[in-house]
Amino acid sequence: MALQDKIVNQARLAKEASRSMNMLSTITKNNALLAMARALEQRSSAILEANAVDLEEARKKGIKRSFLDRLMLDESRVAGMADGLRQAAALPDPIWEEDYANVRPNGLEIRRVRVPLGVVGMIYEARPNVTADAIGLCLKSGNAVILRGGSEAIISNKAIAGIMAEAAYHAGIPEGAIQLIEQTDRAAVDVMLQLRDCIDVIIPRGGAGLIQKVVTDSKVPVIETGTGICHTFVDESADLDKALKIAVNAKTSRPAVCNAMETLLVHERVAADFLPLLVKAMSEKNCELRGCPKCRELVVGMGEATEEDWATEYDDLILSVKVVADIQEAVEHINRYNTGHSETIVTESLANARLFQRCIDAATVYVNASTRFSDGCEFGFGAEIGISTQKLHARGPMGLKALTSTKYLIMGDGQVR
Amino acid sequence: MALQDKIVNQARLAKEASRSMNMLSTITKNNALLAMARALEQRSSAILEANAVDLEEARKKGIKRSFLDRLMLDESRVAGMADGLRQAAALPDPIWEEDYANVRPNGLEIRRVRVPLGVVGMIYEARPNVTADAIGLCLKSGNAVILRGGSEAIISNKAIAGIMAEAAYHAGIPEGAIQLIEQTDRAAVDVMLQLRDCIDVIIPRGGAGLIQKVVTDSKVPVIETGTGICHTFVDESADLDKALKIAVNAKTSRPAVCNAMETLLVHERVAADFLPLLVKAMSEKNCELRGCPKCRELVVGMGEATEEDWATEYDDLILSVKVVADIQEAVEHINRYNTGHSETIVTESLANARLFQRCIDAATVYVNASTRFSDGCEFGFGAEIGISTQKLHARGPMGLKALTSTKYLIMGDGQVR
Repeated sequence: MALQDKIVNQARLAKEASRSMNMLSTITKNNALLAMARALEQRSSAILEANAVDLEEARKKGIKRSFLDRLMLDESRVAGMADGLRQAAALPDPIWEEDYANVRPNGLEIRRVRVPLGVVGMIYEARPNVTADAIGLCLKSGNAVILRGGSEAIISNKAIAGIMAEAAYHAGIPEGAIQLIEQTDRAAVDVMLQLRDCIDVIIPRGGAGLIQKVVTDSKVPVIETGTGICHTFVDESADLDKALKIAVNAKTSRPAVCNAMETLLVHERVAADFLPLLVKAMSEKNCELRGCPKCRELVVGMGEATEEDWATEYDDLILSVKVVADIQEAVEHINRYNTGHSETIVTESLANARLFQRCIDAATVYVNASTRFSDGCEFGFGAEIGISTQKLHARGPMGLKALTSTKYLIMGDGQVR
Repeated sequence: MALQDKIVNQARLAKEASRSMNMLSTITKNNALLAMARALEQRSSAILEANAVDLEEARKKGIKRSFLDRLMLDESRVAGMADGLRQAAALPDPIWEEDYANVRPNGLEIRRVRVPLGVVGMIYEARPNVTADAIGLCLKSGNAVILRGGSEAIISNKAIAGIMAEAAYHAGIPEGAIQLIEQTDRAAVDVMLQLRDCIDVIIPRGGAGLIQKVVTDSKVPVIETGTGICHTFVDESADLDKALKIAVNAKTSRPAVCNAMETLLVHERVAADFLPLLVKAMSEKNCELRGCPKCRELVVGMGEATEEDWATEYDDLILSVKVVADIQEAVEHINRYNTGHSETIVTESLANARLFQRCIDAATVYVNASTRFSDGCEFGFGAEIGISTQKLHARGPMGLKALTSTKYLIMGDGQVR
């Protein structure tokens, strides 16, 4: 009960702060971002000490290496967080931007302007840099923020959020605008997910289990992010050199991220030429291949892909491979198993490029490029709060605008209906 | 169990149909809309016979007059539904509209285009015309639709949806694109709210109870619509003639709709002049006034407004009235009790007009005009699927674009990251 009261109180403080945050000038917000960047750098030793405690605890628990890498901070990562805040300061302010205007026949002047969402709730896992990124992007878009990071990073997160909240307050941001929930058990998440009156949106970032829980249980509107079962389809007319380069990049350049490829589909007319090239290149990268029966006829010794493989986000150096009869079969397979994230076709056929882009149901659909480009910075948004895999509000890489709503302002001189 | 299976099956058929609906040409969609309009008119006698059964049943149950009026169809209302479909045909097609384009330094060409949401679920109450409107607007925006109307209108809805589905199918719309759930108990709604895999969004239209249930229980993303506790604030500098005209219009022109006023706030410096005018005009309209203590000092015999009144959407000829010390108190009262729908200030002060529009947290914020203008057609959208009172995806009157999502199409020539 004490836990619930504390979180409810934090959410109320955030809501209270948010009421005046749409009135903050761009200058005030940018000065606060720059002050937060300086504070992180000046107090980096305190952050690294806190992080050392988290790391020590995680090592004691025998947590695996890739996880420790995400948790670990050093001078350059702290500098990276500060740079992110300076980049947010340099971005155009989305608030009060007018995106629609119309004078009606009766003289009413209708304008639509961008306004903050209010209070943004972030639920995430081990990366402490998400704490700094989320605070910076929410502030720039005029939102208060309530953060619930993973238990393994709690000491680091407290240090980072504490330093940033203090710097923001001294730069004129309302007290309460930055809230970190210190309880790291699942019950804290359950409390957050009920607070429809105080939190305007919750953005979960992390593994499929976390995201599924939030999407299923939340009474607060959610922006679903992240899980990516991404496909590459090598069409009959593909340039096989391009196809190989794209496949290797999409799978192996960073296998643990959401825009990495999990399944490769290849047209049966080029499978016999392409698969040996793929096997050689992937074995050089230590990537395991699991194939459909036709693949295994063409490549002796390839492991078997089961139904479960088509529906799995490996996040690892494993790739499932399937031979398809034509582009229709490729499209059907992708629309059945994908998570609405990123898909690519390698083809020299205009008709098939158009067909693929029109028929695939996903946030981002590529022709002759790696799915690894699905990223706010690569798209030119200057920053990213996550990649939405849902259809409402925002879809694909989300920049600052995804953290805004709109409001109609109507000016009259006595009109009645 | 049979109930659940039937609804799940309908939702699956809708999803299946939706897969190819983004490829429908504007000509095909418009021809289908015109064919549906003709079919409604040609078979209006069948619709009116079905409606007579619903009306007879409702009368037997002793349902109240205003409800019967919403349920009742006649030749002119059927013609109105047909006209709505012709208007939808005349609107620009939102699908494949490009709203963003950017060529990246590495040569990747990024475009963002509008695509259908997929399957739209509508849950509504007694008005059979919502059935025709929803089918028309969903079809124009390339969506399949699954409808669940109120039990009192089920015979009418079956006639309307049946006629429209048949006309659409013969005009080349995929079979299954229009689904009406024939089970009218609450259990049918509960089944719909779970079908996250098949339904992309649910839009509830109706009373506060229905909307609250959908918002709280749905696993499918929801667009919250409709409940409106709308305010008029008569500022110190108001032109009292304008204020009176706006107040009377906002309260009495159609008291049962969501954009009607429920509470009037008046600045204490003009309360003594304004309230007698208000009392006289409202009594001529048979509108009951309930006031705060200060109101009741100024107007002998006025009823009392309790805390509950400030939070009530009367949907009736009742108005709560409060004297406030200044615009700050007005803004605080509104931001505390409003439902994010429509608010207006009557003022001749530029500073207060600006302050009000910036500080009020609502979908539409007026200066010197009646809140009754919050409507898709009045805003120039040509049609309306509802008025969103939430902040994500769409806010305020929703036209066709609110029924769309977006997709990034990226063209490369071998780029890797």
